[in-house]
Amino acid sequence: MPPKAVVLLSGGLDSATTLALALSEGFEAISLSFDYGQRHKIELDRAAALSRRLGASDHRVVAVDLRPFGGSALTTEDIEVPAGRSDREIASGIPVTYVPARNTIFLSFGLACAEVTGAADLFLGVNAIDYSGYPDCRPEYIAAFERLANLATRAGVEGTCRFQIHTPLIRLTKAEIIRKGLELGVDFALTHSCYAPGPDGLACGACDSCRLRLKGFREAGVDDPLPYRR
Amino acid sequence: MPPKAVVLLSGGLDSATTLALALSEGFEAISLSFDYGQRHKIELDRAAALSRRLGASDHRVVAVDLRPFGGSALTTEDIEVPAGRSDREIASGIPVTYVPARNTIFLSFGLACAEVTGAADLFLGVNAIDYSGYPDCRPEYIAAFERLANLATRAGVEGTCRFQIHTPLIRLTKAEIIRKGLELGVDFALTHSCYAPGPDGLACGACDSCRLRLKGFREAGVDDPLPYRR
Repeated sequence: MPPKAVVLLSGGLDSATTLALALSEGFEAISLSFDYGQRHKIELDRAAALSRRLGASDHRVVAVDLRPFGGSALTTEDIEVPAGRSDREIASGIPVTYVPARNTIFLSFGLACAEVTGAADLFLGVNAIDYSGYPDCRPEYIAAFERLANLATRAGVEGTCRFQIHTPLIRLTKAEIIRKGLELGVDFALTHSCYAPGPDGLACGACDSCRLRLKGFREAGVDDPLPYRR
Repeated sequence: MPPKAVVLLSGGLDSATTLALALSEGFEAISLSFDYGQRHKIELDRAAALSRRLGASDHRVVAVDLRPFGGSALTTEDIEVPAGRSDREIASGIPVTYVPARNTIFLSFGLACAEVTGAADLFLGVNAIDYSGYPDCRPEYIAAFERLANLATRAGVEGTCRFQIHTPLIRLTKAEIIRKGLELGVDFALTHSCYAPGPDGLACGACDSCRLRLKGFREAGVDDPLPYRR
């Protein structure tokens, strides 16, 4: 039997490529998505479609209400998603789309899922290059979580399993991620990156996430298969 | 203005005493409880009552569905809550009431709450003596989480705040916790400890949690104000 891995899947191009990578390494993949009160539910539909298409053995969705905590443009209507920022603006500082402690919360659920399904491996598509300035995407953060995971759990303590957090994209540029995904057969038309899609689900092309994505496709010399609103 | 602290409050006697301790140290306390599909919702009513009585400035409840992960007698009907175990049985190994990664998940939400409310301090009533064998109640686990917290967040990275996880009960016996709580004016009649209360809300007196509680009151030489089913 292949070893099991839990793959956090947002429905974006990074996590889709991460799922494809986990599968290509021979893992049986259980994909895990979060319904966290994000403005756009289209992410969850895409995550389900990607799980089926790429061949995850199971796709679980955890409902987590982050709205009581407010504090991010991704979870409250009170803060506007910034649009049209330059590369330099995107690269500087932590943006308003930062969700407090989000990756810590998501990894904690990933760990619970790993423990109950018998998976020792957790995959996360974070990136420290084109990373938009989120503190919980850095290698030192990931290492600290891995250490915590092995202290936190029955399996870690009893020595029946040593948890490992895989972040195969952490040092790749967006263009390299796109090339890797294409190599592994990821259909990027199924992915979703926009922070502020229209009611029709079309990506805006102007938020930080769309801009990083479009720049990545440009640099990879490949057309983005997604339609954009403008 | 007093510094703010987030206090994780289950409604049990440990977390109630922890809340009283945080307040006695001069913190403005925001209590945080979890609706995690536990069998008994009475915990949440008690947490709300304790927050009001002790003087927390705010009580927040986060709905978190742990049931998709199964794996614990506290969240699934498929596993029976053990009753009538001896002290030695209770002290040995990790019990079926262990919820996978629970404290990691709860502390992650606590961290999110701290970050958005501007609290640098998090209080958690874990205990490594009468601790029922949970791996995520040990001091080395808590230290690892504190380290993670300061890498995970905007406030930690920008140096605007250094998160600290307080576990004031970690080295106290249950009897010492009870004496401390009484000293601080905690009304233990408002607390709830039982893993398997009856439909009338009465504590069973036989599960590990009831047995640890009753033993603690006995050793403290004080009567437990709670009524029991038997």
